[in-house]
Amino acid sequence: MKLNDLLYKESEWLKAEGPKSNVAISTRVRVARNVAGHLYFNRANSAARAETLEMMIKAIKKSKLLKKTLLVKINDISNLDKRFLVERHLMSREHTQNSEFKALAIEESEIVSVMLNEEDHLRLQVMQSGFNVMETWRIVDEIDTELERILHFDYSDKFGYLTSCPTNTGTGMRASVMLHLPILAMTAQIENVFNAISKLGLTMRGFYGEDTEASGDFFQISNQVALGHSEMDVLDNLERIIRKIIHKEESARGELFQKRKEELIDRVHRSYGTLKNARIITSSETIKLLSAIRLGVDLGLLKDITISDVNEVLLLTQPAHLQKINGEEIAPYDRDLKRADLIRQKLVK
Amino acid sequence: MKLNDLLYKESEWLKAEGPKSNVAISTRVRVARNVAGHLYFNRANSAARAETLEMMIKAIKKSKLLKKTLLVKINDISNLDKRFLVERHLMSREHTQNSEFKALAIEESEIVSVMLNEEDHLRLQVMQSGFNVMETWRIVDEIDTELERILHFDYSDKFGYLTSCPTNTGTGMRASVMLHLPILAMTAQIENVFNAISKLGLTMRGFYGEDTEASGDFFQISNQVALGHSEMDVLDNLERIIRKIIHKEESARGELFQKRKEELIDRVHRSYGTLKNARIITSSETIKLLSAIRLGVDLGLLKDITISDVNEVLLLTQPAHLQKINGEEIAPYDRDLKRADLIRQKLVK
Repeated sequence: MKLNDLLYKESEWLKAEGPKSNVAISTRVRVARNVAGHLYFNRANSAARAETLEMMIKAIKKSKLLKKTLLVKINDISNLDKRFLVERHLMSREHTQNSEFKALAIEESEIVSVMLNEEDHLRLQVMQSGFNVMETWRIVDEIDTELERILHFDYSDKFGYLTSCPTNTGTGMRASVMLHLPILAMTAQIENVFNAISKLGLTMRGFYGEDTEASGDFFQISNQVALGHSEMDVLDNLERIIRKIIHKEESARGELFQKRKEELIDRVHRSYGTLKNARIITSSETIKLLSAIRLGVDLGLLKDITISDVNEVLLLTQPAHLQKINGEEIAPYDRDLKRADLIRQKLVK
Repeated sequence: MKLNDLLYKESEWLKAEGPKSNVAISTRVRVARNVAGHLYFNRANSAARAETLEMMIKAIKKSKLLKKTLLVKINDISNLDKRFLVERHLMSREHTQNSEFKALAIEESEIVSVMLNEEDHLRLQVMQSGFNVMETWRIVDEIDTELERILHFDYSDKFGYLTSCPTNTGTGMRASVMLHLPILAMTAQIENVFNAISKLGLTMRGFYGEDTEASGDFFQISNQVALGHSEMDVLDNLERIIRKIIHKEESARGELFQKRKEELIDRVHRSYGTLKNARIITSSETIKLLSAIRLGVDLGLLKDITISDVNEVLLLTQPAHLQKINGEEIAPYDRDLKRADLIRQKLVK
């Protein structure tokens, strides 16, 4: 497998085959690990960084579970490729900075990716379609256990797994679910959700993770706490709360569809009409319109398009993806033209 | 012919077969006349009003040129029918007020209509498709000459034709052309046009005539002066100036299509997409979107729709038309639903 192959294959999570795909886009769980007896990345000099990198690459090659894995050295790839991998949620933005001695291992179906030498030596991530916390954790745990047999991770009986940033110390685990909450957002109930979950050890962020605002009704909810609770407690808590949020969104959809049916139908069809006809369209308008269409598919208003189609267009219309498809960097205004072309190509059947 | 038949036949002016139909919707010329020796409408009592009405109805029945004419007594029709006739530009809003002893004669193809007992005893109007001032006048003049042989019109050697309002005294003629000027409006050149023509004895008004603002880039330009100039002078002046405005709009279209092609294409297709997909739409949004589509047809961007289609939808989506099609009065919100349905029915092929 080569990096460019990713562009033309369907990531596992796009398929929208997971539980509650009407509201939940994807579930991700990652654990942060460091190799015992080696300086942490930010403290290490080049030689030490190179050494841990080699050690981890060997470990991944040894792993049976990560057999079909593409290994990418971040310094070897273009800035466009870096942004491309960030857009696919395969690595963090931070991993694109100071990229010497950093690498990324990507398992073929894009379910598993491992960042090597991010702020921790190793960050293992598993992604699943829909609302699928326990299954995602099961895969993480299995691979983590195998890697731990090969590498010796830094662990304290008092604190748990040790990490570069203290917020991750303990389980080293962060689990998150990407939710599509158009009706909670529209009816201003999202504020309540936001306030409630922050009291329950969870946080809510926008589509692109830590440093962006929520856009187009897509929200990522994750645990905040890594210390003092077992993985199972944290996952149970997350699962229970997200199940409630999903239920709240579903009820709100049903209720609004009863009360303001024509308005909803109008909004969905107008959005579809605009996407199928626009010749210039920005990324943020695209996300907004796709949000309405995703809702329309769930409400049974649009028959000739699937949630999987919406997920795909959402992914491919991002700036770096558009440029990868085009084969070269494109200026923002020209991207808006290419984006509209791509959308029509995907949606007009 | 019955009044309801109008709904299901194509008015002559809708066909968009007249000169410069890309910019000019229609040309109208009307003359105001009063029968000599009879009190003018506003001064007359009921008996006198009834008498002039009878006299004029007889004259119209005698006329050979107005043979295929439907005669409607305004008091006999519903308020909905009154608004319907106003929307078709067959009579003025004023003619719907105090409607006793008022009537309207409509010639089958809707080219000719005659208001009886508006503020003047007789107002003869001729409407033609496109920019067609002289031909429209020719028809008015022919019918006016015939009617003058039957009725004796009030005429002063000093002033010309005498009318109820002094602004009409002289020729009693008002000629107007409905123009579609989206690019002059978009590029803010319409203000210049407005200022220029008001110095040249012309006025500019919105789509529905005297008392409404210009909406959706449609402007009606007419002569202001009836006194001290011959009909030919007034028509020549109007024709010459409107020819310039049309040319200005055409050049501006060409220029903008060169400079901001993608933007124009985007706007046209988005408008088309919205019209074909909306489920709720107001009258004013409809006019705005149809304006973009009319432009798109002229620029060759939309192949499966004609200017005539646009004219038809523009006419039929007006409030009274929608209600006539529906067979009964409908509340505004429900009209917005019915309007969207009708538009899809007409545009989605």
